[in-house]
Amino acid sequence: MIPPEYEYIRTQFLKDKLATYLGMEIVEIGADQATVRMRVEEHHLNSVDITHGGSVYSLADFAFAIAGNSSGQIALSMQTSLSITKATKLGDMLTAVATLETATRKTGLYRVEVRDQHNDFVALMTGTVYRKNAYIPGAPEAE
Amino acid sequence: MIPPEYEYIRTQFLKDKLATYLGMEIVEIGADQATVRMRVEEHHLNSVDITHGGSVYSLADFAFAIAGNSSGQIALSMQTSLSITKATKLGDMLTAVATLETATRKTGLYRVEVRDQHNDFVALMTGTVYRKNAYIPGAPEAE
Amino acid sequence: MIPPEYEYIRTQFLKDKLATYLGMEIVEIGADQATVRMRVEEHHLNSVDITHGGSVYSLADFAFAIAGNSSGQIALSMQTSLSITKATKLGDMLTAVATLETATRKTGLYRVEVRDQHNDFVALMTGTVYRKNAYIPGAPEAE
Amino acid sequence: MIPPEYEYIRTQFLKDKLATYLGMEIVEIGADQATVRMRVEEHHLNSVDITHGGSVYSLADFAFAIAGNSSGQIALSMQTSLSITKATKLGDMLTAVATLETATRKTGLYRVEVRDQHNDFVALMTGTVYRKNAYIPGAPEAE
Repeated sequence: MIPPEYEYIRTQFLKDKLATYLGMEIVEIGADQATVRMRVEEHHLNSVDITHGGSVYSLADFAFAIAGNSSGQIALSMQTSLSITKATKLGDMLTAVATLETATRKTGLYRVEVRDQHNDFVALMTGTVYRKNAYIPGAPEAE
Repeated sequence: MIPPEYEYIRTQFLKDKLATYLGMEIVEIGADQATVRMRVEEHHLNSVDITHGGSVYSLADFAFAIAGNSSGQIALSMQTSLSITKATKLGDMLTAVATLETATRKTGLYRVEVRDQHNDFVALMTGTVYRKNAYIPGAPEAE
Repeated sequence: MIPPEYEYIRTQFLKDKLATYLGMEIVEIGADQATVRMRVEEHHLNSVDITHGGSVYSLADFAFAIAGNSSGQIALSMQTSLSITKATKLGDMLTAVATLETATRKTGLYRVEVRDQHNDFVALMTGTVYRKNAYIPGAPEAE
Repeated sequence: MIPPEYEYIRTQFLKDKLATYLGMEIVEIGADQATVRMRVEEHHLNSVDITHGGSVYSLADFAFAIAGNSSGQIALSMQTSLSITKATKLGDMLTAVATLETATRKTGLYRVEVRDQHNDFVALMTGTVYRKNAYIPGAPEAE
């Protein structure tokens, strides 16, 4: 699912400490898109045993970061909006898919859908990045 | 810092599993407001050793949740927006302060400021809640 | 394009004064969706002769309002986010299409895409509504 | 209320066609801040005779644009969020005050509060700008 030309992106994002600490897995990387997933564990819950908004956001943000940097050009997140519309629970499998909505020369607007194992809509994030004149190690343009 | 009448709110939010897992501390609770903090640890970082957006969001969301529920009436988060404007690092102390901007009969609009140990602005969240006709155990109205 | 069962919705929204003042036209109405359009005129521009953000927002918001109320149940806008990614000019034809992303029992999350006559992406709005226990005159449920 | 050093900013924004068409007035301009106002007229209303979200947004966006450009360096709006929490009506006087929340080298995060003649909170906008390497005619840096 991860083509060889995106292997250096995967390598970079395997270094994400929060993603590791929360148990996220990179499923797919493509041009301006990424899919990640996470099974809801006890430590992802809030005080009423619903998946914490922070857990959902962190997963969506991880997909957003990978998609935003998938060209190898470093992208900084400027703003994100999150709406959670279904409460999920212990044991649910959450999948976040980030795709590009539209881009200008220096910016990108991404959409991240989070769905559960029933393919039910869990949350929508939209996020805006600003692209730096800098590249991830291993990027073709960086050499 | 936590008046006796908010002790049941604190008790409720001490059960927040993500907050515990990420090392957050409740500092203050008041009418429609809350302050929480977290020292940035290794597992809060992203792939380039900056505090992960998910870590900042989770902290802000915890303050937002406590403030939103501080009356004892259960509030559901409908939408949040986050802008991170300063990158923070390992060892930084982040403090999130949530306050009410304005309310309608059934909704509330909150502002959460995240600052570091230099009092520098780190992030701004705005969040909207919808208030249910239900109460946290221990709330005066619940009895 | 406007099925007979949505005629009362159209009748209601033809009373929108700002939409009339700015020259908007209702193109389609369907279940949880609406399409409206507006040709950019001199009075829609900002100080550098680009279409004003307020003009783009007003158009998107009109589509959002019609889609949100298309069931006949009255919906109140709680929050909207707008990103404009292409500058448009005098004479351009802007079309806004609002669709439902997902809904809970009392709320709905809508997406509004604004495109120009080249089908280029101009702006993305996301908006959240809260549904009241009240109906538009003419709604089946209102009778 | 408009110091001489901001006169060229005022001159620039008096050319805003939508602001003129909707009847907005510039009240104050300062460093990273601006105040504008508008009396609600018939053509600002929606289909149920409440001030249209587009009218409120347009006013807030005008204050945001002036504040964002107040240094003379041209700022492009990247993203805005709006929450309207009080419905206003024909004859109400709306005042929008834009201030800077925080800035990075190339971006600025602004807050715009809209209040009515009773000083009641009507709406909150947050907006992010990206600063270009270009200046408004008359700006000290432009010479």
